[in-house]
Amino acid sequence: MKYSPLITELIESFKCLPGVGAKSAQRMAFHLLERNRPGALRLSNAMHDAMEHVKHCAQCRTFTESELCGICTSPARQQAQILCVVESPQDIIAIEQTSEFSGQYFVLMGHLSPIDGIGPSEIGLDILAKRLTDSTIQEVILATNPTVEGEATAHYIGQMCSQHGIKASRIAHGVPVGGELEYIDGSTLSHAFSGRREI
Amino acid sequence: MKYSPLITELIESFKCLPGVGAKSAQRMAFHLLERNRPGALRLSNAMHDAMEHVKHCAQCRTFTESELCGICTSPARQQAQILCVVESPQDIIAIEQTSEFSGQYFVLMGHLSPIDGIGPSEIGLDILAKRLTDSTIQEVILATNPTVEGEATAHYIGQMCSQHGIKASRIAHGVPVGGELEYIDGSTLSHAFSGRREI
Ligand SMILES: [Zn+2]
Ligand SMILES: [Zn+2]
Repeated sequence: MKYSPLITELIESFKCLPGVGAKSAQRMAFHLLERNRPGALRLSNAMHDAMEHVKHCAQCRTFTESELCGICTSPARQQAQILCVVESPQDIIAIEQTSEFSGQYFVLMGHLSPIDGIGPSEIGLDILAKRLTDSTIQEVILATNPTVEGEATAHYIGQMCSQHGIKASRIAHGVPVGGELEYIDGSTLSHAFSGRREI
Repeated sequence: MKYSPLITELIESFKCLPGVGAKSAQRMAFHLLERNRPGALRLSNAMHDAMEHVKHCAQCRTFTESELCGICTSPARQQAQILCVVESPQDIIAIEQTSEFSGQYFVLMGHLSPIDGIGPSEIGLDILAKRLTDSTIQEVILATNPTVEGEATAHYIGQMCSQHGIKASRIAHGVPVGGELEYIDGSTLSHAFSGRREI
């Protein structure tokens, strides 16, 4: 004897969420049924609307339901002739929170990974090349992740930039602020030394 | 600059799930947008259908979209004149998995908690009293949780049963199978001693 069909389907469906197994799925289903049906209906609608209408910004590839995202349509952003290349839309939020950057973005939605069949066109480099040709971008900041794939992707795009005669830079790697040297991995530590600056 | 309205609403809505904060909500939203839109649409529909149609079984109060649940409509279950009282629908599943019990259930959907304004009628004891009067139940097994509130609730229902001239029993407390004595709390251990059986 198991749960009724609608409850069984609800529990099964919850397993599509990252990190949610059978136990959590059951807990979520009963929590909502018992205590928050309005919240569940709100989430149901939000998921439906987002999955149906959110697509990629025609210019920077981040997620948006508009033709162009809020950053791409900002006049102030358009004046800044500097483009930051990131792997994911979440990276944009992280960078925006620092208020360090006021230019435009390009989102790869991943990184080069030939072994998984992810080549230049899968991460939108054809669109990026067109943008480097057509626009007045003066500098490209490569803010891909400091992983093997992220570095390879940054290197590839750096070469694209030099073919277009555009300056490319890589974000600095080093010891995170507040990090303890003792617990930093060797690779980061050697970046921190080679990237040292006179004070 | 934040996410687009639909994405912002999606992330906010995810926070209705138990144990999901801002970070997890963001991770779930992007995971689904990037990798599993069909799964998200399935979950959206499942949530909508369950929240709209799942109600309580008219006889045992467990969650079901039918008038009566699968257990209450089972002829074999109706013949067993024994009723097990539990706090939640999930408890039924746990008990069913043991195959130890083949009678019917009554689900309190909680426990007595005067401080929170939860009295007898909030946990359906009026419905239970009617059932004890009308049906041919011979024994009531009190399987509420071994907490202060669960014990108080079991005690209260036990008295109801004796007023109806129906035998009531409480599930045994003791050392869990596979548990190590060293790590069992004192209260459980004293239950294990007072409930000892000759072998
Ligand atoms: Zn954009
Ligand atoms: Zn029922």
